Amino acid sequence: MILTVTLNPALDVTYRVPGLTLEAVNRVAGVSVRAGGKGLNVARVLHALGHEVTALGLAGGPDGDRLVASAGIPAAFTRVSGETRRTIAVVADSGVTMLNEAGPRISLAEWSAFQADFARRAPRASAVVLSGSLPPGLPADAYAVLAALAGDVPTVVDTEGDALINALAARPHVVKPNTDELNRTLGVTSVRDGAMRLRELGARAVVVSDGPRGLHADTPEGLWRAVPPYAEGNPTGAGDAAVAAIAMGVVARWDWAETLRHAAALSAAAVRAPLAGQADHTAYRANLAVIAAEPLEREGTQC
Amino acid sequence: MILTVTLNPALDVTYRVPGLTLEAVNRVAGVSVRAGGKGLNVARVLHALGHEVTALGLAGGPDGDRLVASAGIPAAFTRVSGETRRTIAVVADSGVTMLNEAGPRISLAEWSAFQADFARRAPRASAVVLSGSLPPGLPADAYAVLAALAGDVPTVVDTEGDALINALAARPHVVKPNTDELNRTLGVTSVRDGAMRLRELGARAVVVSDGPRGLHADTPEGLWRAVPPYAEGNPTGAGDAAVAAIAMGVVARWDWAETLRHAAALSAAAVRAPLAGQADHTAYRANLAVIAAEPLEREGTQC
Repeated sequence: MILTVTLNPALDVTYRVPGLTLEAVNRVAGVSVRAGGKGLNVARVLHALGHEVTALGLAGGPDGDRLVASAGIPAAFTRVSGETRRTIAVVADSGVTMLNEAGPRISLAEWSAFQADFARRAPRASAVVLSGSLPPGLPADAYAVLAALAGDVPTVVDTEGDALINALAARPHVVKPNTDELNRTLGVTSVRDGAMRLRELGARAVVVSDGPRGLHADTPEGLWRAVPPYAEGNPTGAGDAAVAAIAMGVVARWDWAETLRHAAALSAAAVRAPLAGQADHTAYRANLAVIAAEPLEREGTQC
Repeated sequence: MILTVTLNPALDVTYRVPGLTLEAVNRVAGVSVRAGGKGLNVARVLHALGHEVTALGLAGGPDGDRLVASAGIPAAFTRVSGETRRTIAVVADSGVTMLNEAGPRISLAEWSAFQADFARRAPRASAVVLSGSLPPGLPADAYAVLAALAGDVPTVVDTEGDALINALAARPHVVKPNTDELNRTLGVTSVRDGAMRLRELGARAVVVSDGPRGLHADTPEGLWRAVPPYAEGNPTGAGDAAVAAIAMGVVARWDWAETLRHAAALSAAAVRAPLAGQADHTAYRANLAVIAAEPLEREGTQC
């Protein structure tokens, strides 16, 4: 069973508007609501592929109830007194404007309760996935604490900034930032340099997702790149699908070339799906047939 | 006891942002939530002045529960299966951008249930206030139906467009549009002409609120104007405070000059309060001391 953790989930609300005008009254033509959060998306993709998953996280208030009830996967969220946040995507013909709430402040007692819930389940898990931002009130090393509680169970971390840097002390099996997150976290623009730096800081392996340019892996077995066969589609949730495939590879003990091939194929399949946390299974199988992970030379070891 | 009706209430959410950028990710620095709706604001002002009120309306879903629980006044809302809407005010230094949801679709059965709830309470009321827009699914003559059910109980209507035009058939005691609503409803820019037209269409008396230019009343007793002593402040809810004073005048059987004086004084006091549905009582008393309703000549009857 794969455990996913979403400490700062959100009810993702989409407003369709004919147009969005600043400093005016805009009438919303359509509203849709969906449980959101990177860890939930990972769990959905795994669940849809037949993997046993449990989604853990923090939820509070009526929006927290709704989030858990509508997640569509086995979920055991720890209750908090604050209210689960919302994100609002205002979708106009001209583009999407996001309004992201920060999330409720988590007390130390709530954080302790979550750690206890996590510690009860983690030893029976085949892998643990820690995804997304930390809500206000949690220590910056929250992911390191959970990775330590998971002990020998392999841990995949998908976050950025202080939460990522602090997670590295626990030597997670895999970390998966995208290029923007890598840049914001380390100030580097080179995928190769950034991945190497994260390994130096403690990550056992690093996969960087680079949009249509594919996935770059820096691992103890070597370096690989896998490129998706197409770029068109909805990129939201593509990184979460890559994390789902990485967790599958960790559990099945695939070698890194095979894991990266699946990650690129599942990620590209997610780009073809209308919503984050979905992946087109036919596209996934078709992508697997055409994607190969290409080994790269480690710089400085070529001559 | 004064009954207020809010058929399309909203949970009013305020997002504070450093700035709002179109087609970008905007982080929300602060969130506040408040039960909203013109009828609720009228009831709050009346309640704060010691009047016995009951707020009726339609509410559904967790946001409906929260709306009723946080209204702060005696409320007996009829439950609907759809979810109470939200309005979002995105407040940046440069100004306020509104995103207004439309409200849930109301079924005929739910509308019948509301009418039954209303019909049980209206005969015991001293006045009925019908405020705001109609949610999707309600007939355009919904306010005329309620005014008819209220029978001899005086009815004050504050709405616009089709809902206003259709309400006039029931000969409401007072209708109170503002100048923008009057213009959108009748296509007229003259306050005098618009008020006269609404009386021709069935309103027994009309009060038009015209922002810092004050209130204009066209009544069977004559025409009056009352001007507030200052213009600075938060205009949201000023019209609702004017409606509250009109309801007080109807119940107390004040003459129109006295009613309009109170409406202007309470409305100006609301402008000094930070939130809609509040009025600064000290300012209200002070304003009463300096405001007089000035009688106007009816055009065409002067010579």
